[in-house]
Amino acid sequence: MTGPIRIAVLGASGYTGADLVRLALAHPAVEVAALAANQKAGLAMADIWPHFAPARGLPKLVRADAIDWSGLDMVFGCLPHAASAELIATLEGPRVIDLSADFRLRDAETYGEWYGVTHPAPALLAHAVYGLTEFAREALPQARLVACPGCYPTAVLLALLPLAQAQLIRPEPITVNALSGVSGAGRGLKEAHLFPEVAEAVHPYAVGRHRHMPEIEQQLRAAFGRPLAISFTPHLIPMNRGELVTIAVELAGSTPADLRAALDARYAAEPFVHLLPEGAVPATRMVRGSNHCVLNVFADRIPGRALVIAAIDNLVKGSSGQAIQNMNAMFGLPETTGLEALALFP
Amino acid sequence: MTGPIRIAVLGASGYTGADLVRLALAHPAVEVAALAANQKAGLAMADIWPHFAPARGLPKLVRADAIDWSGLDMVFGCLPHAASAELIATLEGPRVIDLSADFRLRDAETYGEWYGVTHPAPALLAHAVYGLTEFAREALPQARLVACPGCYPTAVLLALLPLAQAQLIRPEPITVNALSGVSGAGRGLKEAHLFPEVAEAVHPYAVGRHRHMPEIEQQLRAAFGRPLAISFTPHLIPMNRGELVTIAVELAGSTPADLRAALDARYAAEPFVHLLPEGAVPATRMVRGSNHCVLNVFADRIPGRALVIAAIDNLVKGSSGQAIQNMNAMFGLPETTGLEALALFP
Amino acid sequence: MTGPIRIAVLGASGYTGADLVRLALAHPAVEVAALAANQKAGLAMADIWPHFAPARGLPKLVRADAIDWSGLDMVFGCLPHAASAELIATLEGPRVIDLSADFRLRDAETYGEWYGVTHPAPALLAHAVYGLTEFAREALPQARLVACPGCYPTAVLLALLPLAQAQLIRPEPITVNALSGVSGAGRGLKEAHLFPEVAEAVHPYAVGRHRHMPEIEQQLRAAFGRPLAISFTPHLIPMNRGELVTIAVELAGSTPADLRAALDARYAAEPFVHLLPEGAVPATRMVRGSNHCVLNVFADRIPGRALVIAAIDNLVKGSSGQAIQNMNAMFGLPETTGLEALALFP
Amino acid sequence: MTGPIRIAVLGASGYTGADLVRLALAHPAVEVAALAANQKAGLAMADIWPHFAPARGLPKLVRADAIDWSGLDMVFGCLPHAASAELIATLEGPRVIDLSADFRLRDAETYGEWYGVTHPAPALLAHAVYGLTEFAREALPQARLVACPGCYPTAVLLALLPLAQAQLIRPEPITVNALSGVSGAGRGLKEAHLFPEVAEAVHPYAVGRHRHMPEIEQQLRAAFGRPLAISFTPHLIPMNRGELVTIAVELAGSTPADLRAALDARYAAEPFVHLLPEGAVPATRMVRGSNHCVLNVFADRIPGRALVIAAIDNLVKGSSGQAIQNMNAMFGLPETTGLEALALFP
Repeated sequence: MTGPIRIAVLGASGYTGADLVRLALAHPAVEVAALAANQKAGLAMADIWPHFAPARGLPKLVRADAIDWSGLDMVFGCLPHAASAELIATLEGPRVIDLSADFRLRDAETYGEWYGVTHPAPALLAHAVYGLTEFAREALPQARLVACPGCYPTAVLLALLPLAQAQLIRPEPITVNALSGVSGAGRGLKEAHLFPEVAEAVHPYAVGRHRHMPEIEQQLRAAFGRPLAISFTPHLIPMNRGELVTIAVELAGSTPADLRAALDARYAAEPFVHLLPEGAVPATRMVRGSNHCVLNVFADRIPGRALVIAAIDNLVKGSSGQAIQNMNAMFGLPETTGLEALALFP
Repeated sequence: MTGPIRIAVLGASGYTGADLVRLALAHPAVEVAALAANQKAGLAMADIWPHFAPARGLPKLVRADAIDWSGLDMVFGCLPHAASAELIATLEGPRVIDLSADFRLRDAETYGEWYGVTHPAPALLAHAVYGLTEFAREALPQARLVACPGCYPTAVLLALLPLAQAQLIRPEPITVNALSGVSGAGRGLKEAHLFPEVAEAVHPYAVGRHRHMPEIEQQLRAAFGRPLAISFTPHLIPMNRGELVTIAVELAGSTPADLRAALDARYAAEPFVHLLPEGAVPATRMVRGSNHCVLNVFADRIPGRALVIAAIDNLVKGSSGQAIQNMNAMFGLPETTGLEALALFP
Repeated sequence: MTGPIRIAVLGASGYTGADLVRLALAHPAVEVAALAANQKAGLAMADIWPHFAPARGLPKLVRADAIDWSGLDMVFGCLPHAASAELIATLEGPRVIDLSADFRLRDAETYGEWYGVTHPAPALLAHAVYGLTEFAREALPQARLVACPGCYPTAVLLALLPLAQAQLIRPEPITVNALSGVSGAGRGLKEAHLFPEVAEAVHPYAVGRHRHMPEIEQQLRAAFGRPLAISFTPHLIPMNRGELVTIAVELAGSTPADLRAALDARYAAEPFVHLLPEGAVPATRMVRGSNHCVLNVFADRIPGRALVIAAIDNLVKGSSGQAIQNMNAMFGLPETTGLEALALFP
Repeated sequence: MTGPIRIAVLGASGYTGADLVRLALAHPAVEVAALAANQKAGLAMADIWPHFAPARGLPKLVRADAIDWSGLDMVFGCLPHAASAELIATLEGPRVIDLSADFRLRDAETYGEWYGVTHPAPALLAHAVYGLTEFAREALPQARLVACPGCYPTAVLLALLPLAQAQLIRPEPITVNALSGVSGAGRGLKEAHLFPEVAEAVHPYAVGRHRHMPEIEQQLRAAFGRPLAISFTPHLIPMNRGELVTIAVELAGSTPADLRAALDARYAAEPFVHLLPEGAVPATRMVRGSNHCVLNVFADRIPGRALVIAAIDNLVKGSSGQAIQNMNAMFGLPETTGLEALALFP
């Protein structure tokens, strides 16, 4: 390409969309050509987002149907599920990275079961690339439609895929306990997400029935070569950003050291995935606001088991940052372009 | 008894000690006769604790060796481990409730392994009652020395003991993920517990080697009638108080409904342990500052397994509140005396 | 009275109402006879409030028009302004403590200007007692209608009234900077009060036009004996409970020591208002969850000025706790009844 | 210059030093040549800082006396006061930006009074440029020693200097209420900064005697052309980063609109200082992690007065970001180089 990558962001009024625009503004090869948010059309980003108060030169928010798609290179979909697929199915021209759940599951029926709606564009499912960047690089350069993984699946799969592919762990039981900051819940108005309800408190949610379960299972099934069900319990904790998964696995004749060695081999050259030194504990403060993932392996007290622990920022590597990383891969740029920032600590 | 219960609190300069004094002040049958804190001797509680600014009529802090034990009915030990047993071994006269780890483990050798010191008073171990009140009522009225359970063991054992005793679940694997507020780490000066290190962040700690493991195993072993090892991973989350455990268990030919029924039967008449309605999720905000425990059972997505979830306030039911509850039982008072307060929310 | 005080709480679905019920449950002389919340009629408190999960024996929520007022001794109004006065105007029989803004201002016109509605019951204004308990004791035993002060006015007036009455400070300029936890904003659904919008952040609000201004001015005018305007800037800070006011005043020929002496003399015998030792800084953690107020005076760097600083819990002394304190005074009980608890710290 | 700017950071083990290194890593024209921290010599940044876990290619920490100063272009001093001046006085060769308090005050005697030590290098005071970048541009290109302003002075002076220079406000009384996140207190071990002491709480500190007072007064005196004393009360609030000042000023025959107009004229072309639209309230979430300052003016309720409110990130524009901005100006780079990032929200 000679000029910048001209992008549109659909759903710029949500946390995910806003974080994508924040990252796009810092990207040297991107031009933000259009921002859509139907309910906020006519407003500026600074009108609805505090951190855009100092931003300059951004287009105003428009309705999605007011966008001229012809001059765009890339559309980022940050819309709610179903709404996303419905709109994307109509697009011709620009390539698409969708951050909703609509193109993550291969199977329209499974999608219907978990999301409670008929998939609006089942014909596209076969063409979507599952954009866990580190495991999608072959497909990304030619991809027209990329489905960004969910935040929890990103952390769990980065932790487990190399171990599953090498059959170092058993497919069952895999017990995932997950902790997430509140931004993962979105900017919608819910009493449960008011500050006084969340602060100084913690609780699990969607116990036994979180929508990221089938997504994780789908990808692990491919790696293990057999179907499986996982145990997955997410908890809402009083912080804005960050996600940590603590995963108990059964060793398949391997040792925790074997697991570390496998992760080390797989990720040594990766710019965003970091196996910590032996014994060092992953923490979300290592990755707050950055596209990095930190992970490690520990022996469990129960013989024959291990604990694999990973941390990401749910909005960056778990969503918008990975979307940018995918875009970089799709356009032949270094994957780290625009994503070099370290975490913001403290 | 005709007069009030005259108590001394050893270690009133720690979070646990201070919370015990707070509760004792609200107790209609208790007189706080002595407060010890060697490093703070000569000061008033209000000098070292913000919330005691409005308190009136409390004795000043003294060194432990300045206490006249003869007129005391009850001594609460809120000292660090080892220091606690060392002092308690010298006491004659008053009954003792110890909130340290020193009298929780039956076996001095196990204690030495996990706490890194030779037990200062091994002869007392056989006489100590393990004070999980709901399971210690027969022994408490005659007890001279009560060991208050650790905070994590309190939550885990309330959740699992009835299921283990009824053999409704298998002894292995039991996978505990635990979340705790920062007050559980005490008031000692550690960089890791400074506000900017903890806020907006989460991480596990003591992975695979937390000292509450052998304590939980000891009590579960008695309930199951066989030895076992548990998986236990605690996490530090940015809140002051509260503790939540999410426990994955294997069903022993039972169903999640059987587990709920067993807990319901066991706790229906308990004033402080509450099985929530089916599907309702335990949350620490239900118990912040109170002596209550809330729990529930959920079917796991992996067939043949269930999730048992419990929440307490680590400083109250997990420590000082349970100590008061034990004292009530030891002195023939209703267990709820002085502990009636609901949680402070928001 | 021979039996308990039978109370109804109108608006038990808000933070203020819930905190009143929490305190009422711990009150030895109160029976909660009725709980009203029109939108939640038919539910139990535990259905809408996490901390009531362990509560037993409370009546279900009903619509206000379903209450039988005849057997009640006291009605607590925790409704939004205007709605409150409208309902209270219809009540006969029980005495009323209103926690809304409806009966705080003496002047219906001023009320209309600041609250944007015509006062629904202006005839009652002359009969309402302004229930800043420490300054209302003469009127409370006979009062039929008590208006609980706003949270900010409570803190500001406890800090300034004795100084104004003694003419130790000048009426102008009085510059109040106030900080409040988020519970003060209520449980209504506003994007601005979602956790991720508030956490890790601070900002002022209602700059130059907060509704507590005329209320503070009204009371100070009476104390000074002349009209005045105050500067008042509240800020929303990321905590649940607590309120702190930092007030710059001009000395009227007095010294900061004179101010301390006046506050000391006025509050030495007060159970809930505490002048801290010289140089000790008021902090909200001294009063979290308690009915106490702590305050102190400091010399300002600008000669001839002083800083008066006070802290309360906005939901307790700033609202529901003071309501209970008023009830105690109205029924001849010791004011501290049911309000003895120290702050919950940490 | 042909090559990168080779920098050393002294005191990389503090929050300020770490944030400077974080920003330097993202700066396209900087090479981090040396990192000093005497107590941590021999360790890597990742050993002492969570967010450096993914960092690559940084030099290890060394003792300051092990640095070869000859090849350096710039030294950033992030040491405690007194220690900083002592070391800097010995340096020859590299230019210096000092982030300590040592070169902010022009007068060694005033320094001695407020910091309690004799100034270690009084001869350098006359040569130091006070590095509030927006007001130091003429001097910066030739400067050998730049004193970065304190965090509070940065916010207060950006808000007031244009108004003082234009004599739109009176020099007295100026009443500043300031709110700061806890990172401003540094990483030193203090009980008062443990998480449970700070969370869910707020209090003022250093009332009437904060060391930033003489610094603010020195700069305002120059602008007003006469001496003055300010009222300044900082408060510690439970957040990591961010600072907000609410300043009550007396109008000098001007109107709040005049103040807005003056700020607008002064800052319209500034990349980092932003007058918000009329009525929009500055909030720290607008600037979290960024080098921006947002401000605005409001009419006070007291006639003849106004409120000027400003927000910055204390570690960025209030410290390390401004240091980088100064470096850019000293080396002829666009001031925004390496500082383009928007705030991290949520």
